[in-house]
Amino acid sequence: MWRLFQYPLCPFSRKVRFACAVKGVTLELVNEYPWERRDGFAALNPAAQTPVLTNGAIVLADSAAICDYFEETVEKTPLLGAGPEERAEARRLIAWFDQKFYAEVTAPLLSERMYKRLILRQAPDAGSVRNAGRNAEAHLDYLDFLLDRRRWLSGPAFGLADIAAAAQISVADYLGGVEWDGHEPARIWYSALKSRPAFRPLLGERMEGLSPPLHYDKLDF
Amino acid sequence: MWRLFQYPLCPFSRKVRFACAVKGVTLELVNEYPWERRDGFAALNPAAQTPVLTNGAIVLADSAAICDYFEETVEKTPLLGAGPEERAEARRLIAWFDQKFYAEVTAPLLSERMYKRLILRQAPDAGSVRNAGRNAEAHLDYLDFLLDRRRWLSGPAFGLADIAAAAQISVADYLGGVEWDGHEPARIWYSALKSRPAFRPLLGERMEGLSPPLHYDKLDF
Repeated sequence: MWRLFQYPLCPFSRKVRFACAVKGVTLELVNEYPWERRDGFAALNPAAQTPVLTNGAIVLADSAAICDYFEETVEKTPLLGAGPEERAEARRLIAWFDQKFYAEVTAPLLSERMYKRLILRQAPDAGSVRNAGRNAEAHLDYLDFLLDRRRWLSGPAFGLADIAAAAQISVADYLGGVEWDGHEPARIWYSALKSRPAFRPLLGERMEGLSPPLHYDKLDF
Repeated sequence: MWRLFQYPLCPFSRKVRFACAVKGVTLELVNEYPWERRDGFAALNPAAQTPVLTNGAIVLADSAAICDYFEETVEKTPLLGAGPEERAEARRLIAWFDQKFYAEVTAPLLSERMYKRLILRQAPDAGSVRNAGRNAEAHLDYLDFLLDRRRWLSGPAFGLADIAAAAQISVADYLGGVEWDGHEPARIWYSALKSRPAFRPLLGERMEGLSPPLHYDKLDF
């Protein structure tokens, strides 16, 4: 049995959970809050970041390495596309959401609206939150652009690019950082993802002490 | 023929060039400075970052997506390891150098010692440079730790983890951010890489207006 060290608002853990659910890999969840800097956790992953996955014999860290591991070892539902070009496009977009969306939107929102509130007991910095919101707007524009041309983000089939995007966006949305008005292609795409049995359970979870906006887990938003 | 849009101190372009040279893929180099925000470049890669690779028919962006593309399409010299576990460990370390080393060492050095000097004509911030140096020291400690236990960074065979690490370290070293004293395992490993015909040409290049330290391209340093 695989044990996943994660916490409810970790976007990279959401990505792994969504991908594993699609592939039929069962995970036992262990709450791990990286900012507590637990010694035993740094021994599992020297980067001291979630997610970390272990079955006792092997330890996997980094969400991209974990998703690639299951892509290679579980044949069910390939998630990277049909040929090298489709896979390169999927990987470009996975990096886009894992790194660019995270740095510009999810990370500042987690810092201002989760970490400051729950851990530091400080008010968020309004300028930083506004900036993250502007960045989210630009990313939704890019989603609209892609979805005007393609059925799913990286091509004709649902896959890891959609999963990586949904993971980041769902955390930003939980933290009130996403304004959906005026983004119909992105909204339709995200509503379809929200209704998937592999993603839906994630939206039912709550981070203690922090409530999402009312629309957060609704299919009609 | 593949054309690579890059500039001499881009660590991610170095990673792609090193990997392609090992695999026998010939690249034509085109100088592209992302901070000039050339319109035609953003059309190739909306993230507006180097490296971008194109053969006219397809466009590849993001160094991990590019390296995976050639891993899938060129059989010569596999660079990710023999099984799913070895590959997961390689990918964990590639992400370590691409993201963690870059954010903590390469990016601040490029900002302070390249961008400020060549573009802004400002003096570097001494505190930021010192901090990057301290971070580099911690990363070299981790390299020593790994190399005390393994022949190469991710296991018994040379591969993409070594290439990703050498790409970041060579840029940090060019910018005077690496202090090698007291890191014998890392120094022996890096000296072996420096002597490789696939990496050596990179060390002969210079960024106009910016000279590396004397030891930079020497095998004995």
